Amino acid sequence: MTDREHTSKQFEQQLRTLKDKLLLMGHHAEKMIASSIQVLVERRPSLAEAIVHSDDALDRLELEIDNLCYEILAREQPVARDLRFIATALKIVRDIERIGDIAVNIAQRAAELIQEPEAKRLVDIPIMAEAAQRILKESLDAFVNCDVELAEKVIRDDRFIDNCHEQIFGELLTQMTEDPRFILRALKVIFITKHLERVGDHSSNIAEMVIFMVRGQDIRHGIHRAGA
Amino acid sequence: MTDREHTSKQFEQQLRTLKDKLLLMGHHAEKMIASSIQVLVERRPSLAEAIVHSDDALDRLELEIDNLCYEILAREQPVARDLRFIATALKIVRDIERIGDIAVNIAQRAAELIQEPEAKRLVDIPIMAEAAQRILKESLDAFVNCDVELAEKVIRDDRFIDNCHEQIFGELLTQMTEDPRFILRALKVIFITKHLERVGDHSSNIAEMVIFMVRGQDIRHGIHRAGA
Repeated sequence: MTDREHTSKQFEQQLRTLKDKLLLMGHHAEKMIASSIQVLVERRPSLAEAIVHSDDALDRLELEIDNLCYEILAREQPVARDLRFIATALKIVRDIERIGDIAVNIAQRAAELIQEPEAKRLVDIPIMAEAAQRILKESLDAFVNCDVELAEKVIRDDRFIDNCHEQIFGELLTQMTEDPRFILRALKVIFITKHLERVGDHSSNIAEMVIFMVRGQDIRHGIHRAGA
Repeated sequence: MTDREHTSKQFEQQLRTLKDKLLLMGHHAEKMIASSIQVLVERRPSLAEAIVHSDDALDRLELEIDNLCYEILAREQPVARDLRFIATALKIVRDIERIGDIAVNIAQRAAELIQEPEAKRLVDIPIMAEAAQRILKESLDAFVNCDVELAEKVIRDDRFIDNCHEQIFGELLTQMTEDPRFILRALKVIFITKHLERVGDHSSNIAEMVIFMVRGQDIRHGIHRAGA
């Protein structure tokens, strides 16, 4: 085996490890979102603490991925497409890490909310959360496989999540207006749906970065998705 | 001049350009936040469109900075501290870009809000916005100067912004409960203060990355600041 072949093989292996770790981190974040919604829907406050612990695991994974990226950059000195892939990975871990923080925040809000009488409007939240988890997974699959079509699907599906939020918001607004005693509870539900909307935004951002990475075509901008 | 000296000089120059562009991008984002609040406070909806144009300029700067980072990585092949600096720059531009999106969203909300009778509670919002702009600037100054003390100050000052949000939220909640006609308007104000809180969070994230970059000490995690 020549030196060049050796380097290439080692590089491929490091890339594989990087992809695996990113998918694992994404999987952790997905599960955290699912658990945070369980706190609310199944009224299980005890899960909230487990989510905080999961967040520590997520943070460790972020550090590992960052360090792996540094190692690849310093040792393999990739250029062109490979360099762009590593740089995008460095950016993507921030989005996943933020999703972990969002899960912690949802769990905290949910733990407050379940101390009060059941809110009326919870049936759509698990649907919204499942959609958010799915497009997170798909955005990372799109990244590791450089799959532009899947990335485009993520961006389209994110609109579904935005629409869910709008719809739930409208219904809660009516309820609040009819019965002001419901205001605080409704606000907490709105904050939770806004958090889920932001999970969708992060996945959509990841998808936009994938499209840019593969096509060099910048669609990241022009769509303002920081949330309403 | 030896080759090594030449390389080192070129590298220094590229780093300087990178820092200047980052500061310029931050300055743009600051001004966008200021303008978005002017839409609300000075009731100037015409500014909203200018903010969308500024966002395009911000996005172009992000691309320029990304490309400069790629060039430095590919040509200079930095290691250790320099590598970490470039990698952190790649992450930071995402935060600044998101702040631009937030400014666009604030301007849109503000443009809706000023079509209705004046809301009661606007005096604290400019104070909150100024604090958010200031810590954004300080977080980027901390980055380019590797100034850990300034970064720590940013994290402390972000709490002031969070407290502003909590206080405004409490006051608006009382008003909504007393007069349900006020609910929708109050919600829009709450969304704006939440956006400002997120600007603070982004700056605080940048500050945490700076501390990590300089000290290798990870304080990014353990504080969950995705917003309430």
